[in-house]
Amino acid sequence: MKTVSENKCFGGVQGVYSAPSAACGVDMTFGLFLPQEAEDGPVPLLWFLAGLTCTHENAMTKAGAQVWAAEQGIGLVFPDTSPRGEGVPNDEAYDLGQGAGFYVNATRDPWAKNFQMWDYISDELPALLAANFAIDAERQALTGHSMGGHGALTLAMNFPERYRSVSAFAPIANPTESDWGIKQLSAYIGENKSDWSTHDASLLMRERGFDGPVLIDQGTEDQFWDLLRPEALASAMVDRRQDGRFRLQKGYDHSYFMISSFIEDHITMHAEALYS
Amino acid sequence: MKTVSENKCFGGVQGVYSAPSAACGVDMTFGLFLPQEAEDGPVPLLWFLAGLTCTHENAMTKAGAQVWAAEQGIGLVFPDTSPRGEGVPNDEAYDLGQGAGFYVNATRDPWAKNFQMWDYISDELPALLAANFAIDAERQALTGHSMGGHGALTLAMNFPERYRSVSAFAPIANPTESDWGIKQLSAYIGENKSDWSTHDASLLMRERGFDGPVLIDQGTEDQFWDLLRPEALASAMVDRRQDGRFRLQKGYDHSYFMISSFIEDHITMHAEALYS
Repeated sequence: MKTVSENKCFGGVQGVYSAPSAACGVDMTFGLFLPQEAEDGPVPLLWFLAGLTCTHENAMTKAGAQVWAAEQGIGLVFPDTSPRGEGVPNDEAYDLGQGAGFYVNATRDPWAKNFQMWDYISDELPALLAANFAIDAERQALTGHSMGGHGALTLAMNFPERYRSVSAFAPIANPTESDWGIKQLSAYIGENKSDWSTHDASLLMRERGFDGPVLIDQGTEDQFWDLLRPEALASAMVDRRQDGRFRLQKGYDHSYFMISSFIEDHITMHAEALYS
Repeated sequence: MKTVSENKCFGGVQGVYSAPSAACGVDMTFGLFLPQEAEDGPVPLLWFLAGLTCTHENAMTKAGAQVWAAEQGIGLVFPDTSPRGEGVPNDEAYDLGQGAGFYVNATRDPWAKNFQMWDYISDELPALLAANFAIDAERQALTGHSMGGHGALTLAMNFPERYRSVSAFAPIANPTESDWGIKQLSAYIGENKSDWSTHDASLLMRERGFDGPVLIDQGTEDQFWDLLRPEALASAMVDRRQDGRFRLQKGYDHSYFMISSFIEDHITMHAEALYS
């Protein structure tokens, strides 16, 4: 593992590290914020999964998350959204290939060799963090934005024993019925729709739900509303009587300004679950 | 004036606008955050002057300022650090020309035609803001980072009637004795050192001081410590018995993570001065 940078931040350390990934076959970069409490022992960990086109850096610098994580004494990890580099397949579209891993394990060429983000986020990176940093792997939670909200919700409902709480900002809520989803799931895991159901938050919410608190924030002026399909997730949450909140935020769009405006509430909810 | 973007943010609006500048001879872009209170009437304004290489965007997205400005009900303006564009002179060095206006009025060729940042920041942009937005021009304050800390301090001490309070993060504190200063002041306003004294915060602090509160944060691990010369400003503040605080922040460097870690205190101080 290589240290790319470390900056003191809110009494803790905002680091950027790079390590070879067995799942993805290349070096993967991630950001990790550890609060001051990590000097004395392992701290709980909140994952922030980012959206299309993002690297590890976007949320780390723009979400305004560290101030609240420091207040609550929890760590934050900011993974990349896909493998990257010259030897990694790509597509000229912004929403396929590098920067658009969609938090699945690809089974189709040319993607299968590197695009194993599901395993990377749920297995490999957690183990790396627990082995190298003061992180308590028994206390993890998930949040994310857009494609990353999709990742957070689908991972949480597939591995409820690993995550105590889940939240999302403007998630891609129903990818099996959206152009943000059908294209990518077809490319990465094939045209057989029965293989997609573990990767659709609205379907999972109907089938399984989540045994912990859920918080969704969705701006009413989101320019990608039709692609996100928030109505599918909201109705699934209500029909299931899921423990949770689906908040429509009047006037907010899809930007990081929406995220920073509401992330305090998300981190507060996760901290309550992680410290209970 | 052209609206580049507007995003709802902490109940207010984070806008980006562009307008022709008479001082700089080109269109100049700036960010402006207005809190919700601006819907009901003019609000006080805090200037954030950015450092070398920055545009209007860096502090707007990375400083974490809006959360506290919204809490205090004050506006934030994020100007660019120089004129830009194909017709504007430049230098291949990162610290001269575009992105490095140094908050002076250039009198030397080729800079004089466009590099009038002193007038742009102190006169032209305030008038534009007061004419077009719910800004109370009678209640202004200044902060900034690095080169922008230099700008904030020198503007405040030259125009004490315009600004109620001033603060800075790791300012270039003594440019007449530093390679971050001698080069730029020579290029922009000539080799005659007697023309430089209005542009050195430490000299101004010794000669005039500031009739209002001053707050300086300086990281002890700042990689540019020798260029910033914090000792000159600290000793000038003490010798003058200036109303203010000079805080050495252990372990912090020159990055925006330092800024975001402490900006709550700055905005709180400015809000007290602006609402008193």
